[in-house]
Amino acid sequence: MAVYTDVTPEELEAFLSTYELGRLRAFKGIAEGVENSNYLLQTEAGSFILTLYEKRVNPADLPFFIGLMEHLATRGIDCPQPVRNREGVALGTLAGRPALIATFLIGTSVRRPSAAHCAALGAALAGLHKAGADFTTQARVNALSVAGWRPLFEQAGARADTVAPGLAALIADELAVLEPNWPKGLPTGVIHADLFPDNVFFTDGTLSGLIDFYFACNDLLAYDVAICLNAWCFEPDGAYNLTKGRALLAGYQAERPLDEAEIAALPLLARGASLRFLLTRLVDWLNVPSGALVRPHDPLEYLRKLRFHRAAQSPRDYGVG
Amino acid sequence: MAVYTDVTPEELEAFLSTYELGRLRAFKGIAEGVENSNYLLQTEAGSFILTLYEKRVNPADLPFFIGLMEHLATRGIDCPQPVRNREGVALGTLAGRPALIATFLIGTSVRRPSAAHCAALGAALAGLHKAGADFTTQARVNALSVAGWRPLFEQAGARADTVAPGLAALIADELAVLEPNWPKGLPTGVIHADLFPDNVFFTDGTLSGLIDFYFACNDLLAYDVAICLNAWCFEPDGAYNLTKGRALLAGYQAERPLDEAEIAALPLLARGASLRFLLTRLVDWLNVPSGALVRPHDPLEYLRKLRFHRAAQSPRDYGVG
Repeated sequence: MAVYTDVTPEELEAFLSTYELGRLRAFKGIAEGVENSNYLLQTEAGSFILTLYEKRVNPADLPFFIGLMEHLATRGIDCPQPVRNREGVALGTLAGRPALIATFLIGTSVRRPSAAHCAALGAALAGLHKAGADFTTQARVNALSVAGWRPLFEQAGARADTVAPGLAALIADELAVLEPNWPKGLPTGVIHADLFPDNVFFTDGTLSGLIDFYFACNDLLAYDVAICLNAWCFEPDGAYNLTKGRALLAGYQAERPLDEAEIAALPLLARGASLRFLLTRLVDWLNVPSGALVRPHDPLEYLRKLRFHRAAQSPRDYGVG
Repeated sequence: MAVYTDVTPEELEAFLSTYELGRLRAFKGIAEGVENSNYLLQTEAGSFILTLYEKRVNPADLPFFIGLMEHLATRGIDCPQPVRNREGVALGTLAGRPALIATFLIGTSVRRPSAAHCAALGAALAGLHKAGADFTTQARVNALSVAGWRPLFEQAGARADTVAPGLAALIADELAVLEPNWPKGLPTGVIHADLFPDNVFFTDGTLSGLIDFYFACNDLLAYDVAICLNAWCFEPDGAYNLTKGRALLAGYQAERPLDEAEIAALPLLARGASLRFLLTRLVDWLNVPSGALVRPHDPLEYLRKLRFHRAAQSPRDYGVG
C-alpha cells in the first residue's frame, strides 16, 4: 500500500489542465506499488493512473522507465502507456514530485497462480524480452544484481541474525559462491526484474497486462526468468512446484528458446535471485520503525527458497533441460 | 487512508458472482475513510465501491447505515446507494468481514472550501435533514454526543496534558459547563455527524454527493450544523471565517430555517462539537503505537476551535441571528 504524497484536488485540476484529458471526475489514492504514490483518476477521457515518484526512485532513471513503457507499448506489450501533455511531455511535476499520468490497465492480479497462469507469464516475459531488444536509446544498470548484494549485506550486518539465527553466515557463504561464479556472456537485454504476480494482470484467465517497470534495467535475460521462477513457482509452504516451473519455462521457450548456457546457469541464477530478494527484504525489515503499521515483506520466505536452490542439482530440478 | 483487510481476486470474484454486476474488470484498494477497508471495483456494469467493515464499526449498526443510504437515495440525495445481490440482500460477507457494494459517486472533495462551497454544503445538510425526517423504521443513538464525552475524557485521563499543558483541566471545565447546559427540546432527526469536506464531493463547483454515513445517528439537527461550522468555516491558522459561517448558515436556512431556540443554542452546540472531535482525536493520538506510519488527526486543531467558541458571545459571532 502506498499513498505517501498528499495531492489536493485543486493542485490536481491545475496539473490536469495541461493535458487533453477533459475535466476531472474523480480521484482516489490507491494501494498499489510500494515505492511511489499512486492515484486512480477518472476524467472525461476515461480512467488513468497518476504516479508521484517518491524518494526511493532516482529521478535520473525516470526517462528510462518512461521511454521503455512507450517503446513496449509500440511493440504491442500491454503495459501502462505514458500520457503526454499538450506540449508533448510525459513527465511533469505535481506536489513537488516528479509525476506521470499513464493509461489504466484492465485486469486483476492473481494471488495463487496456477500452472496455466505460470505458462502465460512465461510467454509474456519472453515477449517482453523480445520487444525490449531494440530499446537501445537508453540503458540502466541493474543496481540489484550480483555487485549490489554485498553492500546490502553490509547494511544488514550482524543484525541479520536477529531475523534468523545463522543468517549472516549463510549469506556470507552465498556471496562467496555467487560472486566468483556469476554467469558471464549470457544473452542480455531489458529485463523487468520485479515481475511478481501483483504486477501481472489477468482478465477472464487471459494475461492482459504488465505493470510497475520501476526496477527495469539491462541485465541477463535468464536472470529475469530466474526471478519469475522464484516469484511464481513456490507454494506457500516453501515447496517448489515443478509443474508450475515446467509450465513457466515451456511458456517462455515457446516464445524465446533459452540457449544451452542459459539453461545450465538457471540453478545459479535462481539462487542469486532468491538472495537478491532475501537481502532487500532483510534490509527493509531491519529498518522498519518499531510499531509501524506497514509491515514489509517477510525475508524468511526467500530464505526458504534459497535453501531449495542450494539443494538443487541441475536445471531438471526446475523443469527444463 | 485505509485498506486493512486483504481481499484476494479469487475471493472477490466468488463474492461478485452473487450479484448482477457482470465480470470483474479491475479492483484497487483505495485510501478513503479511516474506519473501514475500501476498494474501487470496476465491473462490466460500471464502477462501484466495496467496503469491508472493520472492528471499529459495530455490525449491529450496519442495517441502520444501509437502510439510511437506501432511504436517502429514494429521496433524491446523492449518496452511495447499496447494491443488492441476486437474493435482494445488500449486506454480505467477504474475507470474514461484513461487506457492502455501493454505487460510485462522481466528484472530488475540496481541501480549501470557499464561501460558495460552504453555502452549498449548508443547503445539502438541510436537504439531508429533510430527507431523513421520515426514516423512522430504524434509529441509532449518538454515542458521541454529550453523554459520550466524559468516558472519552477518562480514557485520556492525565495523559491529556502530554499533548498540551493544562488540557485535562480545560476539558474538565468544558464538561462541567456542557453537561448540565446541553440543549434539550430542539428538533431532532437523522444527522450525518461527520460531514467534513472529505465526505462531500463537488463536480465543476457543484455539490454532487455526500459519503461516509458511518457516524449517522438520531440527534439534534442543529448539532449537525455545529459540526459543519467547525469542519468547514475555520481557516488553517485557527481563525473562524465569518463569511463562510454566514454562507453555510444561509445555505442551510434557505432549505430548513432554524428556529429561535436552535439559533440561541448554536454557540453551545459548536462548543460541544469541537469538544467531541478534540476528545476522539485526543484518544486516538494517545493510542497510536510509537513509530506508526499512519498519523492520526491533530487534536490541537480542535483545541484552537474550542478556544474560539469559549470566547464567542452570541449566534451573531457565527453569522446568524
